[in-house]
Amino acid sequence: MKTAKAIQKLIEAFERLPGIGPKTAQRLTFYLLHVPQEMLEEFGRALTNLKKETKICSACFNVSETDPCPVCADSRRDQTKICVVEQPLDILVIEKAGFYDGLYHVLHGVINPLGNIGPEELHIHDLLPRLKNGKIRELIIATNPSLEGEATAMYLVRLLADKLKTENSKLKITRIGRGLPTGADIEYADELTLSKAFEGRREY
Amino acid sequence: MKTAKAIQKLIEAFERLPGIGPKTAQRLTFYLLHVPQEMLEEFGRALTNLKKETKICSACFNVSETDPCPVCADSRRDQTKICVVEQPLDILVIEKAGFYDGLYHVLHGVINPLGNIGPEELHIHDLLPRLKNGKIRELIIATNPSLEGEATAMYLVRLLADKLKTENSKLKITRIGRGLPTGADIEYADELTLSKAFEGRREY
Repeated sequence: MKTAKAIQKLIEAFERLPGIGPKTAQRLTFYLLHVPQEMLEEFGRALTNLKKETKICSACFNVSETDPCPVCADSRRDQTKICVVEQPLDILVIEKAGFYDGLYHVLHGVINPLGNIGPEELHIHDLLPRLKNGKIRELIIATNPSLEGEATAMYLVRLLADKLKTENSKLKITRIGRGLPTGADIEYADELTLSKAFEGRREY
Repeated sequence: MKTAKAIQKLIEAFERLPGIGPKTAQRLTFYLLHVPQEMLEEFGRALTNLKKETKICSACFNVSETDPCPVCADSRRDQTKICVVEQPLDILVIEKAGFYDGLYHVLHGVINPLGNIGPEELHIHDLLPRLKNGKIRELIIATNPSLEGEATAMYLVRLLADKLKTENSKLKITRIGRGLPTGADIEYADELTLSKAFEGRREY
């Protein structure tokens, strides 16, 4: 039996999403056969409008409804700190946690030679003009603690050491802490995480 | 920072799907910010057209482009067997395996008193007229081996014993086999599966 085209098309659309395999795509599609048409149309509209109704902030490259984005436009935020992240989603997560009140800079990816992503494909060099006015005192590099994230962080540190030596000597460059996540168990920690936790130990 | 409305709407649409939590919904939404607008529109159209371009077969209640569905319309299929399944997706899975050549009957759910689903909410009684012409020799009950699936199978067996005693006495009612799935390990099998495997043992 051939599956109905409308069903096949939706299964294929779901399969293209990361982390969604053929079985999940089937399950989601057949689930949607039971929901009201109105809900399907709402979902469809949300997809079609996603990019139409969002902009990339020309200052920090965050995704938002406005340019500049709400963070860059908010004068009450600490204008002396910039947190460098890989993706706009990272901003969402940090903002939800609510402890950080500085600015952001979104790279939109990481350096990945195997995937043909070099520094030119990212918003790395766009960071330099933001640091030249001397207002920024701290740059927090919050790329992921993965191979690519660390490599990107190292590239950034070297680039800045090179370009900003004379111009903004007061700039402090920091990397987010490495160690055991809250609630973790030393017994089950991997060796690298454990060694980073010892390296990053702090005095009481 | 408030998330852009367009992003929030799509996150919420994903969250409504079964098995998709808030984190996955966020990840999928931010992933879609990077795909071409064309692909978003295609996905959106697939959603909006899903129910518009599909019908419920008036014979077996399968979902397809046509009524009757391709299985019911195919005269080469074995017209003496009906396989009862819970969902249209089950037909897709059985058809992909390719060993069954009879007809189907989709209940569109299982009896679930806690969820307020009784036999009236399902296509259980619609099965009776299909069995009355005396052509059907075997009814294979392929509801899931879950609590609700077994209860629904039992309900069906009793209903048929009651209604069809005189009319179609040659009808054989069978239940799909229970036991260890292929590739499984007896060491890790649960007690119920193991006891069903012994009950369902067959002579060489």
